[in-house]
Amino acid sequence: MPNDQSNLSKILVAQGGGPTAVINQSLAGVVLEARKFAQVQKVYGALHGIRGIINEDFVDLSQESVENLERVAETPSSALGSTRDKPDDKYCAEIFKSLQAHGIGCFAYIGGNDSSDTVRIVSDHAKAANYPLRCMHIPKTIDNDLMVNDHTPGFPSAARFVAQAFAGANLDNRALPGIYLAVVMGRHAGFLTAAAALAAKFPDDGPHLVYVPERAFDQERFLADVKKTMDKYGRCVVALSEGIADDKHVPIATKLMAQVEKDAHGNVELAGGALADSLTKLIKDKLGFKRVRGDTFGYVQRSFLGCVSDVDQREARAVGAKAVQYAVEGQQDGSVTIHRSSGNYAAEYKLSALADIAGKTKLMPDAFIAADGNHVTDAFRDYLRPLLGSNMPEAARLQRTPVAKILKP
Amino acid sequence: MPNDQSNLSKILVAQGGGPTAVINQSLAGVVLEARKFAQVQKVYGALHGIRGIINEDFVDLSQESVENLERVAETPSSALGSTRDKPDDKYCAEIFKSLQAHGIGCFAYIGGNDSSDTVRIVSDHAKAANYPLRCMHIPKTIDNDLMVNDHTPGFPSAARFVAQAFAGANLDNRALPGIYLAVVMGRHAGFLTAAAALAAKFPDDGPHLVYVPERAFDQERFLADVKKTMDKYGRCVVALSEGIADDKHVPIATKLMAQVEKDAHGNVELAGGALADSLTKLIKDKLGFKRVRGDTFGYVQRSFLGCVSDVDQREARAVGAKAVQYAVEGQQDGSVTIHRSSGNYAAEYKLSALADIAGKTKLMPDAFIAADGNHVTDAFRDYLRPLLGSNMPEAARLQRTPVAKILKP
Repeated sequence: MPNDQSNLSKILVAQGGGPTAVINQSLAGVVLEARKFAQVQKVYGALHGIRGIINEDFVDLSQESVENLERVAETPSSALGSTRDKPDDKYCAEIFKSLQAHGIGCFAYIGGNDSSDTVRIVSDHAKAANYPLRCMHIPKTIDNDLMVNDHTPGFPSAARFVAQAFAGANLDNRALPGIYLAVVMGRHAGFLTAAAALAAKFPDDGPHLVYVPERAFDQERFLADVKKTMDKYGRCVVALSEGIADDKHVPIATKLMAQVEKDAHGNVELAGGALADSLTKLIKDKLGFKRVRGDTFGYVQRSFLGCVSDVDQREARAVGAKAVQYAVEGQQDGSVTIHRSSGNYAAEYKLSALADIAGKTKLMPDAFIAADGNHVTDAFRDYLRPLLGSNMPEAARLQRTPVAKILKP
Repeated sequence: MPNDQSNLSKILVAQGGGPTAVINQSLAGVVLEARKFAQVQKVYGALHGIRGIINEDFVDLSQESVENLERVAETPSSALGSTRDKPDDKYCAEIFKSLQAHGIGCFAYIGGNDSSDTVRIVSDHAKAANYPLRCMHIPKTIDNDLMVNDHTPGFPSAARFVAQAFAGANLDNRALPGIYLAVVMGRHAGFLTAAAALAAKFPDDGPHLVYVPERAFDQERFLADVKKTMDKYGRCVVALSEGIADDKHVPIATKLMAQVEKDAHGNVELAGGALADSLTKLIKDKLGFKRVRGDTFGYVQRSFLGCVSDVDQREARAVGAKAVQYAVEGQQDGSVTIHRSSGNYAAEYKLSALADIAGKTKLMPDAFIAADGNHVTDAFRDYLRPLLGSNMPEAARLQRTPVAKILKP
């Protein structure tokens, strides 16, 4: 299908899936980049993702001032609202009816795995209906699990939150020794949990153990790991993914929950404190340690106002802008992808085929997971460190020059 | 007892109770202020509070460089380590033996309610034993529940974390509407939970409901409040204290927990996700809403690396320095207290009697709690706002200019 540039007079942008700290950077990238091209007359936003399309809940983003867009860009969580809807054929028919009625020539959807699959379905449907629609997926997910991409916008900022949280928890645990574990978001991919490792500065710093869904979680090995750490340091800090599962791929959280709730995508609801609470109880019961504490980071890790990576901000802005450039200047639908052109550190952007990304999940490569399956490797640390951005706060310690004992020398 | 200045040649400082984001500012305040006085030759630090005293685990803080002390001051959580020990008479006898052996003339203890009570007991014991010991309590607690004080070091930074967390959670909840509740630390005093209210900027922003331990928690009223908020906004964000209790003063969390764990002070262990999980289940079961999420902020709220109020930092530094000034220039034991000399905003410091603070708990005044018992008042907002410090991040919204509907006008 030829790229009829007249179709690009109206671009529609929407946001899907879980919010991130920088998803509005991508939104601002789309809107502000579009203003550079004379043929783009309007940028509409759909409220609450594709649901907003079928409901015709459109807002005119061309009316937004640069100043306000810049302030929204720095605000976490989807400014247009989001949705968990996954369209079927009937849903798609309604999307087209709405897009056609409003003369939309480009649909840009900012989202993760499910959203990229939505873009693919919409793109296929447009082709089948011979409707000239440029479909662009703009990457976003704190899970960092999109194929092709070196990493995904939203992940670095969430990773920074997790690293700063574990740096603090490690200091707390050092002051009042015991066992501390925290459950981090991540159903299938362990990248965000692994980010906890960047909290450590001194050799005895936690997290001492890191468990990701890419490795089968064995209760007995876990208890042995905790015991060994307590013997060595007299304290233990543990990071675990909410999606850790046994060797039969049954999530540990699922086993423990009386009622299993599923969302529209068939995903098991892993929120709540059950996993952390069950594991602290397990440690108390089996190992006999008394001071055992468990936290579940929950929603704060993806939306906390005031913890962001500037590298992530810049890249999220860039993928939004790139989507418009590819739409206006290119001839095909696709997903904007981020690639690492140098390790220390520069990013570059490409347009990749939707089919290579849509509905697929990237897991942590073996090179990022320690041989024992209970920590990360230096390769992962080197991968993540430049993404966390500038001015990472750093812990300091007293020199602690000992004073000679007098009573019990 | 006359103030024998020769006794002040050695000052011992220690940190007790739960860590805060600025407790090391007070430590730096003690050490650096002491360097101004020629008669103070050494400042020792006891590792892990009073336990370090009886174990003679002393470090020589006079050996620490200014540069490193400044970096430690910016690091959250007790750099000397902490303890939950509460001394009995035998314990106190051991403390004196150790202090006497090392020629300590001033004991400065940075801590909260329990630690101030420890200082009182040690002070009484010193007087009874006719041992010339200047005893100073330096305030610290995220609970903000020390008597006499306008507020306590550590609280403003934790309050800032809670406000930023709820600001983010509110944005997340606005993007994907439903019910979100989060449990905040606070057994008896609701100040930290109330800080969630400072997250709201726009009239429909959450938290829409705030429950503190100062008001009896009634399940039916709670459900009615949530229902009313959902009817009004189509979403609901709730802040609750871990210590919320029914009209018979039974904590809601205690009712829900199968096993009750108590620490050495007889405090019930309220950590874990049980309260949040039970309340989300209650809402689902009784009101039938599907998207209900519950978080428990846990340890992150008191030790997160990188969320601090600069006002809190300065005041925490000041109370440490003041303790040394009062010890060197004054004639009595006491607790350094913070007072508000002007609302908008200046602090001043006094030395108050230990008996007025030790072991007592300040609760939120009635003027800070809304008449319905489910939110805070503007008086509380005015009280807290200047304490949160400079550069509070702020959320922005799109203007959202509507586009006329075409299919279903």
